Amino acid sequence: MSFSDFDRQMMTTALRLAERGRYSTSPNPRVGCVICRDDQLLAQGWHQRAGSGHAEVNALANLADARAATVYVTLEPCSHQGRTPPCADSLINAGVSRVVVAIEDPNPLVAGRGITRLREAGVQVDVGLMTAQAEAINIGFMRRMRGGLPWLRLKSASSIDGRTAMASGESQWITGPAARADVQKLRAQSCAILSGVETVLHDDAALTVRAENFSADDDAAIALDGDWRQPLRVIVDSSLRTPVGAKLFAGGGEILIATRVTDVERHKPLEAAGATVVIIEDDGHGRVALPALMAYLRELNCNEVLLEAGAVLAGAALRAGIVDEWYVYMAPCVMGSSGRPLLDWPMITMAEQQALDIVDIRAVGKDWRIHCRVPNTVGAEDVPERV
Amino acid sequence: MSFSDFDRQMMTTALRLAERGRYSTSPNPRVGCVICRDDQLLAQGWHQRAGSGHAEVNALANLADARAATVYVTLEPCSHQGRTPPCADSLINAGVSRVVVAIEDPNPLVAGRGITRLREAGVQVDVGLMTAQAEAINIGFMRRMRGGLPWLRLKSASSIDGRTAMASGESQWITGPAARADVQKLRAQSCAILSGVETVLHDDAALTVRAENFSADDDAAIALDGDWRQPLRVIVDSSLRTPVGAKLFAGGGEILIATRVTDVERHKPLEAAGATVVIIEDDGHGRVALPALMAYLRELNCNEVLLEAGAVLAGAALRAGIVDEWYVYMAPCVMGSSGRPLLDWPMITMAEQQALDIVDIRAVGKDWRIHCRVPNTVGAEDVPERV
Repeated sequence: MSFSDFDRQMMTTALRLAERGRYSTSPNPRVGCVICRDDQLLAQGWHQRAGSGHAEVNALANLADARAATVYVTLEPCSHQGRTPPCADSLINAGVSRVVVAIEDPNPLVAGRGITRLREAGVQVDVGLMTAQAEAINIGFMRRMRGGLPWLRLKSASSIDGRTAMASGESQWITGPAARADVQKLRAQSCAILSGVETVLHDDAALTVRAENFSADDDAAIALDGDWRQPLRVIVDSSLRTPVGAKLFAGGGEILIATRVTDVERHKPLEAAGATVVIIEDDGHGRVALPALMAYLRELNCNEVLLEAGAVLAGAALRAGIVDEWYVYMAPCVMGSSGRPLLDWPMITMAEQQALDIVDIRAVGKDWRIHCRVPNTVGAEDVPERV
Repeated sequence: MSFSDFDRQMMTTALRLAERGRYSTSPNPRVGCVICRDDQLLAQGWHQRAGSGHAEVNALANLADARAATVYVTLEPCSHQGRTPPCADSLINAGVSRVVVAIEDPNPLVAGRGITRLREAGVQVDVGLMTAQAEAINIGFMRRMRGGLPWLRLKSASSIDGRTAMASGESQWITGPAARADVQKLRAQSCAILSGVETVLHDDAALTVRAENFSADDDAAIALDGDWRQPLRVIVDSSLRTPVGAKLFAGGGEILIATRVTDVERHKPLEAAGATVVIIEDDGHGRVALPALMAYLRELNCNEVLLEAGAVLAGAALRAGIVDEWYVYMAPCVMGSSGRPLLDWPMITMAEQQALDIVDIRAVGKDWRIHCRVPNTVGAEDVPERV
């Protein structure tokens, strides 16, 4: 299949529309749709929230007559009755003549059946335009649908010499307001924020999305018009030390505490405070096994997870091979050789090095953001469900 | 004084010509010159090497008749008889009518006298075009002429987590060939390479310029046509542990060993091997005082010095406030929390942090180069000469 420049242009527009769902569609994918006739853009739509209209239906609603139109959609139209009717049927009923699809939906409920249904109804379907971009926009959804783990992003803040806190423990405000606003965006696009009890005890962080920090110049934020969903907050707390008075409980979304404490009586105070406590299998050292926790989050339909934690949990996650991306916010300062390390991960020889692929490095206010991918993580493998 | 677009364009050309002397003019400044008449560029020249023609004289030599011409020069023409005649006189004798000067020469032998001489001869002289660029191209020369220390650049190579070697000591080839070629350029533009005896003992580095690694696509290297000068190599060796069999002695430029060993009998084997041994004052802890060593290098007419050393010497130099710029070549890998630190510089509280100004961060092959300035160094102060 070869595509025209106009096709490419329209799919680019559809991808931008899909981006407007960045902070709100989960567990559904982000999808954008554009309808054209005679090389004229007539209508557009995007999916904003699970339970509300899909992108194709929202676009059709903006057009009186879609007969003989070409539809550009960033993900294969669905073929199954969910909370909304199948989009393939809606497109057929509207009388469109051609559908250009960026990428097939790996969701086992769809997986090519939407395309087949359209073709059987006589609609021309062209698949495979800007697939890399369409894949990237739903990176966690795609992998979860293929049986993998949620996409895990690790966020760290350090000095140029790789330190996250002074020897005294002081660590607040290493990075500036622009970097902190950037982290808020990472939080907002995540289904869950993963942290450790040490962060709760030391920083008493709420781990909520504070949209006022970044929403003014962000299309996806503007599209939400204040109606934010708070990601699930997940605390790794192997021996249940989370205090019920922590800021975590002060409001803003659900809380899941992953523990090794099997005595459910000890769960009750945290449950009374509003958390769900779940027992996750042992890592062999008396701590929560992180891959098993990620498999559990997959069962909760988490697509993308953000890990915000100290050196111990961050190091353990990298060593377990579950971190897919790493954002290091680097402050322009030296914190000294007695400062705390970025990761707790002892290695002896050069052969033990963890290679990374740097995606980009950019200025964020006075700080710099190093964005890496971790090659060969276990996330794409079929990790067994929680025991 | 206001300058025209043409003036700016010609001074830009002159600055590019000055750049061709990047690897060869020291201890002299890099200077470029362009001669124009009726808004036509007629001739150009640059200074290549101390003892050879100055930029103005080289440009004049490329033009039969410079009468009524305008001359653009990146540094004030000299007024004193050195190894070559005063350039101000050459310009007057050639009959030029206007000289545009980027910046006044802070050299006490010139310091405005070249400009005065031209004006007294009836030549129009306009000063102050692109001064920041003209200053930057001779950053070490400028400071030395104003009584400050040589400009000191520190080069480090680390992993993303701020480690320079594994716990095992393995450290070779952290960064790739592009980063190493980039370091060769830093070496080549330096009057001296400063290192420590630990680097000599551990890496047995020659610390010479290996021009074949970068010269193919570099104008200043091409201009040299293979005729490289090797920077002075300076080893901080407080207790004289440098082995006479070190690669350092295998050829390529002079060697200076800075020590605290006052027994000159102990200097003799190193002197016999070809090094100069100099006793530098004590830092109060039995080691060479680094600011005093920098003051000594100033007396040797060093403009720019590159520090390539391990965590101890690099940390000591930063703490002493003599490092002006820092290039960190960052390899895309994690070397782990038991790896060796970037700097040996213990700090306890946030208030002790050393702030940096990041100039830029760029990809160099598979690695990234973080280029910082260190604010408020002691280099600009009038540091006393060696005791």
